[in-house]
Formats: sequence, C-alpha cells, structure tokens
Amino acid sequence: MSESNNYCVIMAGGVGSRFWPMSTQKYPKQFQDILGTGSTMIQQTYDRISKIVAPENIYVITSKEYITLTEQQLPDLNPANIVGEPMMKNTAACNMYMARKIADKNPQANIIVLPADHLILNETVFLQKIELALNLAATKDYLITLGIKPTRPETGYGYIQFVENQEWDYFKVKTFTEKPDLEIARTFLESGDFLWNAGIFVWNVQTILAAFDEYLSEMSQHFESCEYNTAEEERCIDVIYPKVAKISIDNGILEKAKNVFVIPADIGWSDLGTWTSIYENAAKDNNKNALKSRHILTYNSKGNIINLKNKNKAAVIDGLKNYIIIDTDKALLICPRENDQLIKEYVQDLKNLKKGDKFL
Amino acid sequence: MSESNNYCVIMAGGVGSRFWPMSTQKYPKQFQDILGTGSTMIQQTYDRISKIVAPENIYVITSKEYITLTEQQLPDLNPANIVGEPMMKNTAACNMYMARKIADKNPQANIIVLPADHLILNETVFLQKIELALNLAATKDYLITLGIKPTRPETGYGYIQFVENQEWDYFKVKTFTEKPDLEIARTFLESGDFLWNAGIFVWNVQTILAAFDEYLSEMSQHFESCEYNTAEEERCIDVIYPKVAKISIDNGILEKAKNVFVIPADIGWSDLGTWTSIYENAAKDNNKNALKSRHILTYNSKGNIINLKNKNKAAVIDGLKNYIIIDTDKALLICPRENDQLIKEYVQDLKNLKKGDKFL
Repeated sequence: MSESNNYCVIMAGGVGSRFWPMSTQKYPKQFQDILGTGSTMIQQTYDRISKIVAPENIYVITSKEYITLTEQQLPDLNPANIVGEPMMKNTAACNMYMARKIADKNPQANIIVLPADHLILNETVFLQKIELALNLAATKDYLITLGIKPTRPETGYGYIQFVENQEWDYFKVKTFTEKPDLEIARTFLESGDFLWNAGIFVWNVQTILAAFDEYLSEMSQHFESCEYNTAEEERCIDVIYPKVAKISIDNGILEKAKNVFVIPADIGWSDLGTWTSIYENAAKDNNKNALKSRHILTYNSKGNIINLKNKNKAAVIDGLKNYIIIDTDKALLICPRENDQLIKEYVQDLKNLKKGDKFL
Repeated sequence: MSESNNYCVIMAGGVGSRFWPMSTQKYPKQFQDILGTGSTMIQQTYDRISKIVAPENIYVITSKEYITLTEQQLPDLNPANIVGEPMMKNTAACNMYMARKIADKNPQANIIVLPADHLILNETVFLQKIELALNLAATKDYLITLGIKPTRPETGYGYIQFVENQEWDYFKVKTFTEKPDLEIARTFLESGDFLWNAGIFVWNVQTILAAFDEYLSEMSQHFESCEYNTAEEERCIDVIYPKVAKISIDNGILEKAKNVFVIPADIGWSDLGTWTSIYENAAKDNNKNALKSRHILTYNSKGNIINLKNKNKAAVIDGLKNYIIIDTDKALLICPRENDQLIKEYVQDLKNLKKGDKFL
C-alpha cells in the first residue's frame, strides 16, 4: 500500500441547531471551540488526521455557505480541497460526490470519512484503528466502520451487530440499524453484540463506488454524468444535486451491503451531539459547573454548563442546579440539562415568531 | 401664596447597585426605563411635578458624573438648574446646598424635594397632597413629609409615628425612626400609628434653613460661606463638600426637629428599591412573568422578572420559577427573586475579581 493512496474526507455540512444559540446557521458547531480547548472541532479533526494523511489528500465537504469559514480555520488546506455542496442532501450524496472526485484523481484511493465535529480523546488508538482499516480497505473489498462500545440506550445513533471472531481485531457486521427506538436500543445494549456506529468510515474508492452502483444506482448515474476536477464540475454538481435523494450513507448503503466490517475502537469518542455530552466532556469546577468564561461567579449552583460567547462579559448565577445557560449576542438560553433534546423545538418556536429567523 | 414661590428639587445622585447589572455606576436606575413604560424614572418624576411647578423652578441635584445624562433626558430643563455634587454625601448636604441656592434666588421659596427614582401610580392624589403641603409650608414653619400606609414590616424605610387628629388631613409627627430592625418594624406595622417616610418633603426654605442651623450647625456654617448663583459657587462647593458630614436628612433633621408634620398619601407609591418591588409593579403575562423584551419564550416558567437590555436579543427560558434574569452587554445575572437583597454582595464579589470593576 502506498501512503499516497490514503485520502481523508471531512464532512462539515451540519447546521448544529441542537446547540443553539451557541451554534447558528451562520456559524455552526464544527467551526466553534465548543469545549474551550483553544481549537475548533474541525481544526481538531484536521490536526488529528493530518498525522497520517498528507495535507494534499485531505478534503473537506461542506455547504457552499461555509467554504470561507473552512478556509479561515484550515489555512494549511489547499482551497481546491474544500468542496461546497449547493444544498444539504444527507451523507450518501456527499460521500458519492467525494468518491467520484477522488477516484478521478487516484482510482486506487483509500478514503477515510470523518465527521468534522466529533470528540476523540484517545488519538493514539484512533490512529492505530484507522491504520488497520486502511490496510483492510487497500487489500479487501470491505466497507469498514469504527464501532464504539455503547454505554447507554442511545436512540440517536446507528447500532452495529457484529459476528464475534476471537482471532481478529475486526468483525463482520451482521445487521446495521440506524436510530432504533428506546426499547430496541435497550435490548441492543443488554445483548452485548452491538456497537455504536461512530460515523467514521474507511473504504477503497472502488469498493464504495461499487456499493453505490448496487444500492443507490439512480444517484450513482447522476454523479457519473459529471467531469470531476475540471472547470465543469461545479456547474454539473449544481444541476444534479437537486435531483438526488436525501438519504444517509447508513440507510442507503451500510444497512444493505453484505461486505461491511467493524473495528471496535476504544477511542474516547463522543459525537458531542447534545449540550449534555458537551457537559460530560468539559472541564468542571468543584461544584461540577462547566464554566466557559473567566468571569462567572456561582452561588448555590451545581452541575451547570455556563457558556458566555462574549469573553468580556460577567455572569452571576445563584440557585441553579443542572441547567444549560448559553449567552450570545443574539440570544440567551436557560433550560434544564435534561431538556437539551428540546432545543430544536425552542428554535422552531423562535422561527415562528415574527422576524424570529434573526435569532437563529 | 404666589405660584412662582414653588420650587422642586429632584434628587438624582444614587448609583443603584441593587439593580446591577441593569443599573450601573455609569448609568444608574433613575436614568433608566426600568419598568418598560417608555420613559425613564427621572423623566417620570419631572413630568409629574412639572404639572404644578414651572420648569424654571425645577432643579436636579446629582453627581457631576450624571449631569450630561440629566441634560439628555430632561431637554426642557435649563442646564443651569442641573447641579452637580463633587462627591456623594447623603441627603442632608444636598438638601442644604439646594436650600441655600434657592434661598439666594427667592427667600420665600417653598421647596418640594423628590427622589428621582420612585414610582407614583396615583398622580392626581400625589399632586393634591403636594398642593396641601405647599400651602402648609407657605403659611407655617412646618417640615412636611408624605406618609405611606405600611403593608409589610419593611426594614429599609423610615417610619413616622403620628399624632392622630381626626379633623385634619395632616398630622404632627411624634417620632421619626429610620430603618428599624425587623422586630421593631413588626410592632410599628401592628400598632397602626406609623407611616412609611416616602422621602418626599415639602418645606419653606427659611424653615429648613433654620432647622439646619439648629441641628446641623457645622454643616450649615460650611454652606454659609459660599456665594450662590455666581461664578464662584462651584469652586466653593468643591472646597466645602469634602468637609461636610455624610448624614441623611432623616437622621440629621427629621428625627430631631419638633415641627415635622406628615400628610398621609395614598399615591400608589413604591421606591422600586429592589427587583422584587420592580416585579410587583411591572406588567405580567399569564404565567406571572414580568418580561421586558418582545422576544422571550418561556416554558414551564412562572413568576420571573426577565429583562434583556438589548431589545434585538431573544431569550428562551425553561424551568425557572421566581427568578430574576437580567442581561446586559456587560453581565448576566440569574438569581432567585427572594435573594434580591444579595445583589449588592454579588457586586462586591465581582469588584474583588481581577479587573472586576469593568462589569459594574
């Protein structure tokens, strides 16, 4: 395997409405230093993978709206490697687009697909597992995903049931189930045969293109019509994008394909999908408050996540337990941590206000 | 009594730290539309008294720091009638200063003294009682105060014990007690013989000057040394102010004088001395939330006072009951309503932070 065959696609198209008001349409979560570590989520993702993939082989696919933000935050990246989608079409379309584009450059490419906004604490194990996956992808026609041992009956993730094989450090996938209901998630958790799908994929470009041809043949024909890495590419993509299905790579390919393999990976992973997961991963003071500002006084307050976007602003918080308190120039959010799943609904209610869009 | 003998002094020197962060050193409560009515407290006070006192006879005494704010908010007032104190010296000094200054203009002046930041809902009764007081002041050597029927054992007010006389609509004051402790306040409330001192005074300038000579003779001698309404006035005041005692007019004069009379006045009064009193006097929605912004969504939240200084900002508040939520560009305060007396302590704690003054 030549190292120059290894490519990475960072998916950075989300709008992060579950993190309103910190994350907004104009400035979503992946472009923010949401844990207060000094670098944004996409910067962390780029820095992590650039240890094993050459910068010229790293691509970001995002909304056209976020191309400038991406260029600003990843100045080492060739702007030609930042690809803008004309509209949101879920993850099947962007993966097919990038597979076609990279195949045109290098038909032997092995592609690592990474979400831009996930937390990975154990970088060493992560890189080991990615190396293993790249070796598999280069030599076998496998679609490979990293699997995380579940710790709760989460209904927001995809679950991977695997066929145990004590000799290997990767397993054939038996079933792939996206976002089960709570009852099913509980049985998955109890059975011990399931891993979470971390949304981190590795495949050879020919393997994934063959899967697209088989399971998403109409979409595949659309993308076949473009000439990639030419002056015509953008115009062609603008024409076909409105026509292609909105479907996730999980629903469209992984649930159907017979050649899906999972590598269990204890990588300290969180998708940081809710304020509660941010809270769990953030540094906390003696009262278990996660404070993201230097100027916060708390009294009789525990278990809160308090985040002021304006770093020159003070806060005095008295008598709150287990709340989310997020303050930006446009909006103030105060809600119980256990209601963090309702934030999308608050945002919808705000949209329904007269001129409510300006707060989003 | 000639109407042109009637003067008004609006006292506007407070810094309002109990209303932090809405009220700040640079922009205190009297200069804010704290109830959301469309006019600031000092504008309401001016508008109310200008119905019976000519504009050229209305004075504002405030800190030098707030002269520009006063000019901006009261454009009808002659700037010469806005008097700046070089430092805070409580209410005896500013009343003596203004009595000297007005006596120099008109030795027959009757002076109405009004705090700039109090709420008076019943303007008609207020003006009737002031007219009565002016008549008394013009004809008798009385120091007159308006008295409010107490509704709770408030320890922050002065209490007036009066000598009942069923024939008159004003009473001689028997004792005058500033800020009693809770036990005494309770006995005052139960006895029925006490009224709250609203800090609204009416006196003839000769009567109050005589009282100053008798009870605050040292201070009186200091103020006697200046030539008022001349180019020398400000320099002289700057020299004597550091020397005079910090004492309230209540402690210095009213508790001692024998010629104090009270007019019971059912004027819908509040000193708006705490956020709780602001809450009680503010318009409230169906959930008893007092919301001062058009863009606030509340869920499972009752009895809160929510005030966003930036009127283009939204707030989503979930799961708070009986809280104070105040948001400004500099600071966010969230505390239980019952802790509104602690705000001064929060402010002190903020001052102790490195560079904490910038939040005040």
